[in-house]
Amino acid sequence: MIIIGEKINSSISSINEAISKEDKEAIKVIARLQDKAGADYIDINAGAFVDQELNKIKWLVEAVREATSKPLAIDSPNPKAIEAALSIYDGPQPIINSISLEENRFEPVLELILKYKTKVIALCIDDSGIPDTVEDRVSIAGKLLSKLEANGVNKSDIFLDPLIKPIATGDNEGMLALQAISEFRKQFSEAHIICGLSNISYGLPARKILNRSFLIAAMVMGLDAVIADPLDNELMVLYYAANAILGQDEYCSEYISQYRENAFKPIY
Amino acid sequence: MIIIGEKINSSISSINEAISKEDKEAIKVIARLQDKAGADYIDINAGAFVDQELNKIKWLVEAVREATSKPLAIDSPNPKAIEAALSIYDGPQPIINSISLEENRFEPVLELILKYKTKVIALCIDDSGIPDTVEDRVSIAGKLLSKLEANGVNKSDIFLDPLIKPIATGDNEGMLALQAISEFRKQFSEAHIICGLSNISYGLPARKILNRSFLIAAMVMGLDAVIADPLDNELMVLYYAANAILGQDEYCSEYISQYRENAFKPIY
Repeated sequence: MIIIGEKINSSISSINEAISKEDKEAIKVIARLQDKAGADYIDINAGAFVDQELNKIKWLVEAVREATSKPLAIDSPNPKAIEAALSIYDGPQPIINSISLEENRFEPVLELILKYKTKVIALCIDDSGIPDTVEDRVSIAGKLLSKLEANGVNKSDIFLDPLIKPIATGDNEGMLALQAISEFRKQFSEAHIICGLSNISYGLPARKILNRSFLIAAMVMGLDAVIADPLDNELMVLYYAANAILGQDEYCSEYISQYRENAFKPIY
Repeated sequence: MIIIGEKINSSISSINEAISKEDKEAIKVIARLQDKAGADYIDINAGAFVDQELNKIKWLVEAVREATSKPLAIDSPNPKAIEAALSIYDGPQPIINSISLEENRFEPVLELILKYKTKVIALCIDDSGIPDTVEDRVSIAGKLLSKLEANGVNKSDIFLDPLIKPIATGDNEGMLALQAISEFRKQFSEAHIICGLSNISYGLPARKILNRSFLIAAMVMGLDAVIADPLDNELMVLYYAANAILGQDEYCSEYISQYRENAFKPIY
């Protein structure tokens, strides 16, 4: 399982404030905590700054690179902001968050993937919007995969995101998401399958509880990467437990070692 | 989902002590807490008392009946102890925990099911022991179902238990259990599927974490009943969340109502 730590996002008010003030220490602390908590990538997003996004995301690259050696997930719908970040980035292979089949997005982001040899999160959306059915998600995912591969991107560098809708918008959205993950796993076995975990709980109370429960359910269906909050200690321990239960942790050794290192208590 | 509260079990030292001393209030408190926490059945087990089991389980029936109107799960491998309990029980339809294909167990327990019109938990075990494979579990489950049905027991009164082995005994035991649950759901759709949740974590640290994670995974596969600790508040909130995610909670209304009633905080 690959975990992308989602905390350094300009839509979170404390982070927004730190970016505004260019309070580097505040950002570095969150980067380090996520690293220590088990994040494989540190996501950075400065989208809330609109006109200043390019400068702010470059500043985030610098701040996070000073705090951790983990690779970054460069998070923006704006190819110019993604390139601004990549142009100064000097760490291990990063991941672009994200490409889609939308016409104004696919070609410019593809250029950046090839130019900077990155991995990429591929959102199952085209110009007609988020698909309603499992079949439509599979169809868009298939098109994304073949277009990326035709351009020389390795399947193993592609993280398919079925785009989960909140269960608050429809009782069947959870099952649709789980079925899409299961189909993706069957049909696109060499690609990664990822989701933004917190989408499922949007609009409902006690969101972390729903996110934790959904992560386990999605892992059972074949999810092997997630954009999530690694500082949610309860989420992480359930994740280690799920790995052990699903036979992905030989002799339960990671689970036991996390227990011994007291990872089962809050770390901050 | 049907929840059988497992706390009144003579293998738990505090309960053993309460039964020994005939401390009725101690037992009644645990019965009431489980009822309030959402248990649909209250399990009673006096198996540790061996020679005194018959008297002790009758005493448990009295104690629990004074505390709650929920039906009981009569838990013993000994048909004589089960009958002792049923002979004085005057509550809603109880469930016998349990019958199996073992020769000295099937016929005597079947007689009690028919005589007292009970539901029953059917363990997938025969005289050759707990099966190693999914196929063997399905085969025993099929035999149990047809023998019970041939004797007039309704499928909807039968709770098939695939018998989970601890993941500490083998990395693949979790997946085997999940696959068995999935197969049972496909092949025996009218029966309930149940498991004793804590088996999965036997021999490992932080067992509750593994139990919580396994419950969600098993619900995804089709588990619709469980023998578990309803006083584990974290388990219960994840369970409500899973119901909402799996589309089994219209408009997430149970989830939201549990939230409003503060069920997401420890109740004891």
